[in-house]
Amino acid sequence: MGSKGWLDRVNSPEDLKKLDLHALELLAEEIRSHIISTVERTGGHLGANLGVVELTLALHTVLSAPRDKIIWDVGHQCYPHKLITGRKDRFHTLRQWGGISGFPHPEESEYDHFGVGHSSTSISAAAGMAIARDLAGQDHKIVAVIGDGALTGGMAFEALCHIGSLGKDIVVILNDNEMSITNNVGALSDYLGRIRSDRRLYKAREDLSLLLRRIPLVGKPLSQVAHKFKSTLKNMLPGQLFEDLGFAYLGPFDGHNIPRLQRALRAAIARGGPVLLHVYTQKGRGHALAEENPERYHGVGPLQVVNKRKTLSYSETFGKSLVALAETNPKIVAITAAMPDGTGLHHFARRFPDRFFDVGIAEQHALTLAGGMAKEGLRPVVAIYSTFLQRGYDQIIHDLALQKLPVVIGVDRAGVVGDDGPTHHGVFDISFLRAVPNLTILAPRTGHELQAMLEWALAQSGPVAIRYPRGDASRHGSQASFDPQRPIGAELVKSGRDLVIFAVGPMAEVALEAARLAEPEVSCGVVSVRSIKPLDANTLLNQARRTQSVLTVEDHVLAGGFGSSILELLQGEGIRIERLGYPDTFIPQGDRHHLQEEYGLSVQHVLQTIRKAASLRPLQAVARKDL
Amino acid sequence: MGSKGWLDRVNSPEDLKKLDLHALELLAEEIRSHIISTVERTGGHLGANLGVVELTLALHTVLSAPRDKIIWDVGHQCYPHKLITGRKDRFHTLRQWGGISGFPHPEESEYDHFGVGHSSTSISAAAGMAIARDLAGQDHKIVAVIGDGALTGGMAFEALCHIGSLGKDIVVILNDNEMSITNNVGALSDYLGRIRSDRRLYKAREDLSLLLRRIPLVGKPLSQVAHKFKSTLKNMLPGQLFEDLGFAYLGPFDGHNIPRLQRALRAAIARGGPVLLHVYTQKGRGHALAEENPERYHGVGPLQVVNKRKTLSYSETFGKSLVALAETNPKIVAITAAMPDGTGLHHFARRFPDRFFDVGIAEQHALTLAGGMAKEGLRPVVAIYSTFLQRGYDQIIHDLALQKLPVVIGVDRAGVVGDDGPTHHGVFDISFLRAVPNLTILAPRTGHELQAMLEWALAQSGPVAIRYPRGDASRHGSQASFDPQRPIGAELVKSGRDLVIFAVGPMAEVALEAARLAEPEVSCGVVSVRSIKPLDANTLLNQARRTQSVLTVEDHVLAGGFGSSILELLQGEGIRIERLGYPDTFIPQGDRHHLQEEYGLSVQHVLQTIRKAASLRPLQAVARKDL
Repeated sequence: MGSKGWLDRVNSPEDLKKLDLHALELLAEEIRSHIISTVERTGGHLGANLGVVELTLALHTVLSAPRDKIIWDVGHQCYPHKLITGRKDRFHTLRQWGGISGFPHPEESEYDHFGVGHSSTSISAAAGMAIARDLAGQDHKIVAVIGDGALTGGMAFEALCHIGSLGKDIVVILNDNEMSITNNVGALSDYLGRIRSDRRLYKAREDLSLLLRRIPLVGKPLSQVAHKFKSTLKNMLPGQLFEDLGFAYLGPFDGHNIPRLQRALRAAIARGGPVLLHVYTQKGRGHALAEENPERYHGVGPLQVVNKRKTLSYSETFGKSLVALAETNPKIVAITAAMPDGTGLHHFARRFPDRFFDVGIAEQHALTLAGGMAKEGLRPVVAIYSTFLQRGYDQIIHDLALQKLPVVIGVDRAGVVGDDGPTHHGVFDISFLRAVPNLTILAPRTGHELQAMLEWALAQSGPVAIRYPRGDASRHGSQASFDPQRPIGAELVKSGRDLVIFAVGPMAEVALEAARLAEPEVSCGVVSVRSIKPLDANTLLNQARRTQSVLTVEDHVLAGGFGSSILELLQGEGIRIERLGYPDTFIPQGDRHHLQEEYGLSVQHVLQTIRKAASLRPLQAVARKDL
Repeated sequence: MGSKGWLDRVNSPEDLKKLDLHALELLAEEIRSHIISTVERTGGHLGANLGVVELTLALHTVLSAPRDKIIWDVGHQCYPHKLITGRKDRFHTLRQWGGISGFPHPEESEYDHFGVGHSSTSISAAAGMAIARDLAGQDHKIVAVIGDGALTGGMAFEALCHIGSLGKDIVVILNDNEMSITNNVGALSDYLGRIRSDRRLYKAREDLSLLLRRIPLVGKPLSQVAHKFKSTLKNMLPGQLFEDLGFAYLGPFDGHNIPRLQRALRAAIARGGPVLLHVYTQKGRGHALAEENPERYHGVGPLQVVNKRKTLSYSETFGKSLVALAETNPKIVAITAAMPDGTGLHHFARRFPDRFFDVGIAEQHALTLAGGMAKEGLRPVVAIYSTFLQRGYDQIIHDLALQKLPVVIGVDRAGVVGDDGPTHHGVFDISFLRAVPNLTILAPRTGHELQAMLEWALAQSGPVAIRYPRGDASRHGSQASFDPQRPIGAELVKSGRDLVIFAVGPMAEVALEAARLAEPEVSCGVVSVRSIKPLDANTLLNQARRTQSVLTVEDHVLAGGFGSSILELLQGEGIRIERLGYPDTFIPQGDRHHLQEEYGLSVQHVLQTIRKAASLRPLQAVARKDL
């Protein structure tokens, strides 16, 4: 073995094929250590990656990537794959500005065949690739790896139904770790649980399904006896649900046994047609704390691996405030789509288990379910990350707004989220939500305001979305409270004569700091808009007319965003307007503050913009896009 | 019987309960005649409604609505329900401005419990209502009626999984007419087909499943023998897939046999917990032409029942142009989500069956499937109505735009669609699409342009959306052609000195007519923007600076729409801008031209706006919202 580790000898999957089983097992342990030490420093998804080390090695020893294509669903389990596909030298830059992505990224490597980040897309993408392969007369293998949690997403079912009926050669590996991010929920999970719990048959089934592949189903004549024998075997096997959808089901198999996985995968490929290969893995495998508490170690920040920070985030504030409100209002119910911890709703789940609903990775259902509840007099609160809300857009329009149903949507992780990068930034929600009639959109500046807005929202007769960012909620200022009988007005945080900044949520803090630094040369006011829709036209128009110069600041894209709604409001006023926000490009990964710096939302950049705007008064008819 | 028909005697579902079976069967025929004669005049959904007449009567005789709640999926099969729930006198106003809706509409009747229009939402809404019922300690019945086509939508699966594991009392009636709008596709359909095709067991199963209900599963002690007998019976029954998801399966039953349906429904209710009741119905039942050709008679315009109009719509233009392009480019493939006829893709399907993919009602899968195909070198074209594209927003962002995959999206039915009303108008797409980086958005003014834009889009290296309205494509003007190496620029359709109109797609025709009528008092230019994103900044800025007054016209909401992007472009220019489009409200049903008239998009209204704008030059700092 020498002084070099096994990982040092692996520069591409081809190198794996030179290793014997013992070496592969040692390599698996090395990969685990490497992931743990890196994630301790960079943060990242720990549990899922530790769970798929052996599966990854089995895949890359049986397949010939990149010719053969592996599509990782969600993608947060791609670290072992990245380490053995030529990216170990850059692995220390994981999830950092300019570094390698925490998700598969086709621009990063020819081994990453499809960009992912949200759940349940792998079977659709693999189906498209299988169709393309067959039309081109090629014969490479296509394997989608999807978790039991991701399989609850409706589009995975849509894809199963489609590819199951087309009959294309495709292997779907169901990576069953008995949970998605937290404990899995729903009937599909119960179903998989029944397969698991039947321990008596577990070993027998493995043997049977391996036996099964030795009796070819097609291509060779089968005696009546063999055929009948096979049917009988099949009925003894689990997975009929997948068989009903047109897939051959093989499994379940131990997902940490490399030779067994290799055999199973070869069997699946030899079988032909759509095959579902069911493997059991353990999330957090090899990391004592993560094995024990997989929810907490799903995604971790730097150092959090050993010591969790204690802070009060907006999400926590939201969750705790909701519990307090629900103590006196039995109509309040809460819904999450597989994110009870991330959204702070775990507090509610503990306190009111009968009024809490985790629907799995199913944003569409979550929102329409809330609509049905609201129609019958409940006061449902759904907390969903801004980026995942993109999955439930039609349901917001039809099942909440059109019917004016009083559902509160907590739009969590609004704005850039940092290291998870472009698939997770929540920078489109204002644009897609503000087009929807009957919908109120709020943005709190502080934790106190979030609490008060939630209370206000629960007293309204129509749908209300409250957007708040990742990270610590500012707790300064006094308790806030809003009259439920009136719309929430904008707040003049600081008066100014020369210029006024209209800011969304916590961006008002950045604006305020910049405005103070601009004194005494420029007298710059700051308004926290609080209500993005409807706008508090009175306050905003008054301030704008007074200063004749407005700067908008939002943690969101400029195209159709908040600043754009101010252009609409001030249309025809002849008032000078500048807008700060993200340009028309996907924002890469990086530290949140770094991203805000990079894209002109730092205090210094706002200050520069204030000074420039002040120097340009009064209105001049020149292009401002170079500002 | 007297001279009055049976329908005359039915003012509410309670009246049905006084009728004997013979009277109910006569009533069913009356309802059929009434629907056919009304739809001949108003247009509407014929086949689905004729298919559920007996089912509707069975439901309303067994249940006590509105206390018991029936949720109709999609909702286009609600006409018999409307006729017997107090709306027969207004039924002649079906789908007309100010008339009753073609879909369930809670504001219209207490018998309509949830607003619908898009597919696959009923189980989610019913689940929410069941949870609310149980939390309130009530005991009314909740029944969702969903078609086999709608069941292919992923969110229906999400809801089945959720309610199946919660175990709430809920009856889901699978209304299996062997097709959604056209022939149904996918593995679920194959699965249902296998149940159907096993004719030997059909009758036996009905008897068995009725027998089943007489052996209580819970609440009473069961002898071992009875229990075992029941298990054996169950294994002989179809529907294991639904059983695996936590539902009791009953069926299949003849959906046109009222007493059998009544018995089955009572059995399902008595059974308790989540029950799936599988019934077969025939689309178009009782209308010879519609029975024979259900695709053509799914949704019909006035008079089309007897005589189909021959016109060349944008959809047809799109479909035929695509066939022409695909003749020389074998990489072109086409995808529809259960709308081959509506989108004009049936031409492609006929010519290139191996390159055509109908994925069922599954917009999410359709778009990611296209992404997978494009990644592997194909040139996929997906045609989806604007309103249904709301279902695939996240997939457009992640699986097409972020990965810069060259998929062409035909955004059909963009703008108001007319009689189908607010659930079907396509008036949000510009707002939600233009926020997405890397996406090109085009709008043709004529059929020629649509053809040329499609050709251009298929030569690009990233995703392109082409939005076009319902209705006839204007074929005037010469053949168009665009250089694939260059962005598509705006077209100056008419020069003007005083004012210039920037118009989207066919609204340029309205603008042109108004501009001509404004002569000679006002010299008004007209620009067809052609490319909504990116904007042809040069042409638009030149025209705007020249006239210093711009009017935007779009068949779309104003909030964040095209006009808003012009405000962004001209920010800081000091140019006067007016915008015409839909206000911040859901647009009701009505004739398309009437709606455009009503909401200020008629030639006359544009003309008034031109005159007013011209009289107000130069720029004045006053509010323009009263314009």
